[in-house]
Amino acid sequence: MFEVEVKYRVPNHDAIRDRLKALNAKFLEHTEETDIYLNSPLRDFAKTDEALRVRVYGDGTVVLTYKGPRIGNVGKTREELSVTANDLDSLLEILRRLDFREVAKVVKRRDIYNYENFTIYLDTVEDLGSFVEVETMVNDKELINRATDEVLQFGDKLGLKREWIEKRTYLELVLERGNERR
Amino acid sequence: MFEVEVKYRVPNHDAIRDRLKALNAKFLEHTEETDIYLNSPLRDFAKTDEALRVRVYGDGTVVLTYKGPRIGNVGKTREELSVTANDLDSLLEILRRLDFREVAKVVKRRDIYNYENFTIYLDTVEDLGSFVEVETMVNDKELINRATDEVLQFGDKLGLKREWIEKRTYLELVLERGNERR
Repeated sequence: MFEVEVKYRVPNHDAIRDRLKALNAKFLEHTEETDIYLNSPLRDFAKTDEALRVRVYGDGTVVLTYKGPRIGNVGKTREELSVTANDLDSLLEILRRLDFREVAKVVKRRDIYNYENFTIYLDTVEDLGSFVEVETMVNDKELINRATDEVLQFGDKLGLKREWIEKRTYLELVLERGNERR
Repeated sequence: MFEVEVKYRVPNHDAIRDRLKALNAKFLEHTEETDIYLNSPLRDFAKTDEALRVRVYGDGTVVLTYKGPRIGNVGKTREELSVTANDLDSLLEILRRLDFREVAKVVKRRDIYNYENFTIYLDTVEDLGSFVEVETMVNDKELINRATDEVLQFGDKLGLKREWIEKRTYLELVLERGNERR
């Protein structure tokens, strides 16, 4: 499965939330997620555009995810592989023994909505601000471009300006912020 | 926690099973385990005496385990870190993307008994034959030597001959068998 996703940096969530309500979009859930990103000892994932992430949900669920390089242009489509684990500390310790190093932590609160084939995330990211992600899934690489257009058009409908599009990942934004601070 | 464990290669399990019954050892369970061993792209785990294993139990449970180098002399004490995962295929695919390579598969059936502080495994390993493992756990490195003596004395009690002790892991035995065949 390929995740087709466009992210927007927004001033706040008020207007978008109103639009979602007007469209009768379904509110799915509120989650709190802490993402721990790790880098490979073999190659710099920041350069190869891969990512290895351990995500901890508010309810304690732990998910290990490998993300391949971005495929699309506007969006940030990637292949994703995930597995749920039963223990955060053991998982992190195993990864450390295998020489993976923790490089960044992203903490966010998200409100998740569904509308037709789209999932909409209203994200508040610690130290970074407010974002909206619009996502859909396709099971064939051939469908990525069309799906990206559909996501962008639905973004227009929500009042998300195209100049707000943020191609960088939260990881990249957190790392850049860290560099600026030095 | 440190696992203190001695393994014996045995002609068969009949005599040992009789001893366990005579001692009123408690039969815990029968399991079937398929172990997939992976090697690191950075260093040869066969040389560093580490191991990365994905174990699949008969009921479908998947456990990822990292084993550090053996510490003791007679026994095969190691530090172990484990985490349970919810999906075999995704876990293996993530490990492949992180450049770990599958090097061997060990398939075994085990009957597990408990007696006092000891766990006793009667193992039948595909292509290798019959083995008995006697194990106890200690939470301090200082206690490893004493625990190893206790395991050996209990092995005597079960009629396990000291010349039957097999220091090699099942992984090493399977790999050696593979080399002999070439």
